[in-house]
Amino acid sequence: MPVVTLLSDFGTRDGFAAAMKAVILDLAPGVQLVDATHEIPPGDVEAAAWTLGQYWNLYPSGTVHLAVVDPGVGSRRRAIALSADDRYVVAPDNGLVTAVLDSAAAWRCVEIVETRYLRPNPSATFHGRDIFAPVAAHLAKGLPPERLGPSIDDPQRLTRGPPTRTPAEVRGRIAHIDRFGNLITDIPSDWVDGSWRFVVGDSAVDVGLLRRTYSDAEEGALLAVVGSAGTVEVAARGASAANLLGATRGDPVIGRRGQI
Amino acid sequence: MPVVTLLSDFGTRDGFAAAMKAVILDLAPGVQLVDATHEIPPGDVEAAAWTLGQYWNLYPSGTVHLAVVDPGVGSRRRAIALSADDRYVVAPDNGLVTAVLDSAAAWRCVEIVETRYLRPNPSATFHGRDIFAPVAAHLAKGLPPERLGPSIDDPQRLTRGPPTRTPAEVRGRIAHIDRFGNLITDIPSDWVDGSWRFVVGDSAVDVGLLRRTYSDAEEGALLAVVGSAGTVEVAARGASAANLLGATRGDPVIGRRGQI
Amino acid sequence: MPVVTLLSDFGTRDGFAAAMKAVILDLAPGVQLVDATHEIPPGDVEAAAWTLGQYWNLYPSGTVHLAVVDPGVGSRRRAIALSADDRYVVAPDNGLVTAVLDSAAAWRCVEIVETRYLRPNPSATFHGRDIFAPVAAHLAKGLPPERLGPSIDDPQRLTRGPPTRTPAEVRGRIAHIDRFGNLITDIPSDWVDGSWRFVVGDSAVDVGLLRRTYSDAEEGALLAVVGSAGTVEVAARGASAANLLGATRGDPVIGRRGQI
Repeated sequence: MPVVTLLSDFGTRDGFAAAMKAVILDLAPGVQLVDATHEIPPGDVEAAAWTLGQYWNLYPSGTVHLAVVDPGVGSRRRAIALSADDRYVVAPDNGLVTAVLDSAAAWRCVEIVETRYLRPNPSATFHGRDIFAPVAAHLAKGLPPERLGPSIDDPQRLTRGPPTRTPAEVRGRIAHIDRFGNLITDIPSDWVDGSWRFVVGDSAVDVGLLRRTYSDAEEGALLAVVGSAGTVEVAARGASAANLLGATRGDPVIGRRGQI
Repeated sequence: MPVVTLLSDFGTRDGFAAAMKAVILDLAPGVQLVDATHEIPPGDVEAAAWTLGQYWNLYPSGTVHLAVVDPGVGSRRRAIALSADDRYVVAPDNGLVTAVLDSAAAWRCVEIVETRYLRPNPSATFHGRDIFAPVAAHLAKGLPPERLGPSIDDPQRLTRGPPTRTPAEVRGRIAHIDRFGNLITDIPSDWVDGSWRFVVGDSAVDVGLLRRTYSDAEEGALLAVVGSAGTVEVAARGASAANLLGATRGDPVIGRRGQI
Repeated sequence: MPVVTLLSDFGTRDGFAAAMKAVILDLAPGVQLVDATHEIPPGDVEAAAWTLGQYWNLYPSGTVHLAVVDPGVGSRRRAIALSADDRYVVAPDNGLVTAVLDSAAAWRCVEIVETRYLRPNPSATFHGRDIFAPVAAHLAKGLPPERLGPSIDDPQRLTRGPPTRTPAEVRGRIAHIDRFGNLITDIPSDWVDGSWRFVVGDSAVDVGLLRRTYSDAEEGALLAVVGSAGTVEVAARGASAANLLGATRGDPVIGRRGQI
């Protein structure tokens, strides 16, 4: 009984997510549906890419990840099916799979063009229901991805400079702000240790040395910790670091060694 | 393993939805639960009816749809079980099933009166847990609906004038506003084509000729498209048409032919 | 196929809930996952405890309830596994299981210390994924809880004075405010009947005699009813009692007999 997960920016209240699940269950009875999230901010492909990166490779081999944040629906952007480390991702080709491409040991990608695997007469405004959901169902049932269309080697990636390092300094940025207001950076936590000190944003607010967990700070105080995504995270104990700092995604974060 | 879907205005944070799912799984182990949504605006039966209409007949035959938006809970409003095109809907009799009645090829309806299929001593304030959930479980296990109570032929419908048409003009209204701020009308898209031009609201804002998809407009611009619900939809590329127009459900939308 | 339910304050949009579900499905293929809620207000252990109390014992025997609202993650607070009336609860030891302890006929509790049942190298900031999810999976597969660590008899409880009663007066407080703005008290509804009259808050707003259901009041009017949690509830027909009264959790509610 393969697993099919769903990620979208549809919310649930309009029935769009429910319609995608209907299409999957109708074509592939018995698959195990898992709602990853339908609460990606509308049209925010970068947030969707980060979120998909948090869980795609934790699911069992054979899992199909349906991911639809698709501001360009109906335009000429491609639809793709990605095979990566024994899992599948079905998504619009708009950069949504960037974190999967970056973290997979190996991947192959096809463009979805074979109309026999789509719903008849697909709409121009709801490819989640009419294209991505039926393709996810067929993959869950064992369809080899090559049947969907030609291989491509250039799926879209979101481009942003990677973090940089010298022996004394690391420079990254805020890659994601989570529900708690934690500022999750792109700085790998194994680049640094407890002797590194971090500053955040254009005004370089000092958040101190890298700590182990939230409760290593006073209530309400800012701190830097090793986050669960494997990168440095700036948080505030029992509070929102994003609110305290007025921070937004993309803001710079800099660490310097040995400044105790 | 039949499917039971759930729609409500309960949200999830109070455990009311979790309690309904418990009752179903306890009575019908192995059924496949699907959360359609619990985020219908509190008490908004019209939104619930529209949403249920988006997915009910896409699910496999035998699916049971539990739908509870029930501002009249505990009053004399009836509880009903509807059989429609090989699916079931269990709901309060307050108009929630209007879109199902309107789109089903055939339906039959019973009033739920047999207490043996309810939880013992049902509360007067939570029929979702005590009446609708156990009835949904019993239907999923194969109970013939006739066992639940007497047939009725007058389930409540939400009444609103249908859209009208002449060879040169169609008149409808905004039937639903989705999460993206798209204004979904009740005007069937097969009444019109790309030679029709639309105006919205009492101030008759011109949104231009019917287009194919969102990206046929400039960023931020209003447009009319063939929506995924099979009706004309007024949208704004990458923006909320509802915000741009200050539109609300029920506002008039008028199309006129040949005004290029 | 045992059931594993999930409750958290993670929301869904960051992928944290999706990651917990991945860990469970990877370790225990075929379990039936049920999202209870991920929308507990961030860090609100008291709300989580109340919500868990609404459904934990409605699920089938053998169900595992994963509950993670964990402001002290990474600190010295214990992680616990509770066996209660044939169900299990896996949670941080911060009072989250209070309502389970209070309502179970019998319970036993262990501290989770055996690292072999955790993910390797658990993070200090995401025990939901690295500790609680794998433990829930192992329990669902039949692991005896005693294997997880030593028995403890003092799991944390949230302390709040219980409601009190005399023949003529009951005194309680608002234990929870739900999505609809209903004020759910801790006063058992079998302490009172329709001859009791209630006042709410420090300014003692009179909400009248105990009624049966919401529609026993005029539209917009306040009333006291027997709530579905088995306690007295203060509501407003078609409106939010919390907004009308400016009420907050913990506010006093007093009932007096015979004041018709």
